Amino acid sequence: MSHFDQLAPQQLFKALESASPQDTLPSMDVLLNAVRFNDDGLIPAIAQQHDTGEVLMMAWMNREALEETLFTQRVCYFSRSRQTLWRKGETSGQQQHLVSAALDCDGDTLLVQVDQTGPACHTGRRSCFYVALGVESAEITSEPMIDPATLYGPKTS
Amino acid sequence: MSHFDQLAPQQLFKALESASPQDTLPSMDVLLNAVRFNDDGLIPAIAQQHDTGEVLMMAWMNREALEETLFTQRVCYFSRSRQTLWRKGETSGQQQHLVSAALDCDGDTLLVQVDQTGPACHTGRRSCFYVALGVESAEITSEPMIDPATLYGPKTS
Repeated sequence: MSHFDQLAPQQLFKALESASPQDTLPSMDVLLNAVRFNDDGLIPAIAQQHDTGEVLMMAWMNREALEETLFTQRVCYFSRSRQTLWRKGETSGQQQHLVSAALDCDGDTLLVQVDQTGPACHTGRRSCFYVALGVESAEITSEPMIDPATLYGPKTS
Repeated sequence: MSHFDQLAPQQLFKALESASPQDTLPSMDVLLNAVRFNDDGLIPAIAQQHDTGEVLMMAWMNREALEETLFTQRVCYFSRSRQTLWRKGETSGQQQHLVSAALDCDGDTLLVQVDQTGPACHTGRRSCFYVALGVESAEITSEPMIDPATLYGPKTS
């Protein structure tokens, strides 16, 4: 038991602001009930390569995707365009294995440290963040690692 | 001039998927017109400490905040609770100086590399991502660097 278990969901993250690494936190169910999913039931999830620190992508999770990610250690998002769970790499093979996950101070954003197989981006690039903005001009900062046609092309077996 | 200048805004990021670092990109105005702000006119912006790779926080920007950030090199968000521009550090003194900025493949998320003065989090912690989630339990992973009362307390001068 944790003394945080008695709090209403909307009070939990405020109470955790003054918590320490020594504190016993509430059960995962209590904590997940307090996550501040948006009106569509989603939170943004930032994926970072655990050893290099590279930010690979940002996508969205609903509660089911978040629970599956924690339980299976394979990162699962929710596809807003397809309105379904999106197990990263299920089509392309470019999976994300979970290393760690953390919510932010107000419980409405997730950071996942992952081990990314190959490119994270559907364009074949390692990271989705390749359109660099300056004051007067922009530039593309990386080339694809893999031709995207090979990521999503017809299966040969 | 860039051959991308002729594209409709909703076609630009798709066309940039196959662009290379050697390509001349459209003017910043054309590019900013193509950014896919959400229904509230906002995009999520991830702030990463440029040298250590630590992901510090995620907040939101409208077009005005994004343009101010690029022009002043001081990171400016849009506060959803206060519905106003939020120049990071204007109250706390904990500013973010911009090192670089990049949009993602579909133009709806921004990554800013910053040099963060002191803690990024309003709790006094370096990063906002301190509630680590496991399969069965969670834990707090960092202590405040600074008492948050000193960040937002009454000014003495």
